[in-house]
Amino acid sequence: MTQNYVSVVFDRKKKANTNKSGKGKIELYIRLNRECRKYLTIGECTLIFATGASAKYLGLADETKYAGMGVSACATCDGFFYRKKVVAVVGGGDTACEEAVYLSHLAKHVYMLVRRDELRASNIMQERVNNTENITILYNTQAEGLYGENGVEGANIVKFKGTDKETREQLPIDGFFLAIGHKPNADLLAGQVELDEHGYIVTKPYTAETNIPGLYAAGDVADPRYRQAITAAASGCRAAIDAKNYILMNNL
Amino acid sequence: MTQNYVSVVFDRKKKANTNKSGKGKIELYIRLNRECRKYLTIGECTLIFATGASAKYLGLADETKYAGMGVSACATCDGFFYRKKVVAVVGGGDTACEEAVYLSHLAKHVYMLVRRDELRASNIMQERVNNTENITILYNTQAEGLYGENGVEGANIVKFKGTDKETREQLPIDGFFLAIGHKPNADLLAGQVELDEHGYIVTKPYTAETNIPGLYAAGDVADPRYRQAITAAASGCRAAIDAKNYILMNNL
Repeated sequence: MTQNYVSVVFDRKKKANTNKSGKGKIELYIRLNRECRKYLTIGECTLIFATGASAKYLGLADETKYAGMGVSACATCDGFFYRKKVVAVVGGGDTACEEAVYLSHLAKHVYMLVRRDELRASNIMQERVNNTENITILYNTQAEGLYGENGVEGANIVKFKGTDKETREQLPIDGFFLAIGHKPNADLLAGQVELDEHGYIVTKPYTAETNIPGLYAAGDVADPRYRQAITAAASGCRAAIDAKNYILMNNL
Repeated sequence: MTQNYVSVVFDRKKKANTNKSGKGKIELYIRLNRECRKYLTIGECTLIFATGASAKYLGLADETKYAGMGVSACATCDGFFYRKKVVAVVGGGDTACEEAVYLSHLAKHVYMLVRRDELRASNIMQERVNNTENITILYNTQAEGLYGENGVEGANIVKFKGTDKETREQLPIDGFFLAIGHKPNADLLAGQVELDEHGYIVTKPYTAETNIPGLYAAGDVADPRYRQAITAAASGCRAAIDAKNYILMNNL
């Protein structure tokens, strides 16, 4: 019998169970294949949770429509494709400013679409953006959609939405960059494992350990700060070593 | 004029200097080339300290003589070359036990040379070693030298050194593995930067920051736990990002 798929499902019904010490335990419902299904309890086995973080989007249908055709959530990944072109960056925080400055070295012009009438970014980042000639900040501005034949050719923007001054216009751009943050994919663990205020799994400093013995976290789901390919790879290595040691030390 | 070498020397004479806030500052004497030499103060520039950690050796002349010819400080790196051969592992801690168990899967036989009359390792690791058929622990045993024509052919060992029962013998082996720990190469920073009790640079949890603003640590010199190639690479990435942000935020 071949092992044709492996799926792991957290058993929400069992989450109220308690073990002998009275603490909550996490149970996994593991389906190795159609015939073999069983429950595992974390601690009696180990689990490395590496579900990543997803870039936040505005939720526009056009973001999906133009995915890979002018819409991006990573300036350092995709900026290169916009040399000498015109791009917009959505967001007003440090990351958005950083992405805008990064893109300003590649693109002909960078627009920042900022919903509020000010940037949330630190003063120094604001200064840097303001001192960059080919960045224009559009305050009180939101994107409502994108247009273009074979890719993004522009954004439909609205200014002062919901006020007397509300106006709509078209902004010709070649690229539309989201820089409004990331959401760690840890919902499955909510209420069971310690998460920080942004929903990232909290690991014990210098390790991949979570607050549940036998449960380890790796990659962007536990990294609010760097989220680089190499840092994710390293945290996978750390989690594997920690899990191996747990198995060894608990004679599993 | 080409930049033919770059060297950084911590200025020990200047280390007693204090800055305006009264805290010690670290100065670097940087030699960019023969003509251009200058002092830099960390904080006015950034520095990533990545000097690594060195495996500890016993200090035998033969360890140098047979370096790369049967002497190794890394079982996972070099174990492969000792398939079906006989090896000795020096040390009695968890790492030594781990290395011995790892090598037992490759080598024909593994001797552990343990200076004391017991292992320092955790019970579970001791058990694991004791349950491995092709590992023999030699207690109260030290290596005094190695012998062999074109590589290690054996070790000169002494048992119960300094007691009435002191005896010397030859132990035929093909490989001699050191597993007595690592020493972080951070002496240059001693007294100036926070180090842990084993001499590793202490970084702020989840970052590459040291207790000196502008000074970052990367790699094994700040990693007492994992010391893998990929974790070192990732910490270099973290240090670079942290240093870049410091430069940005302080308008350097």
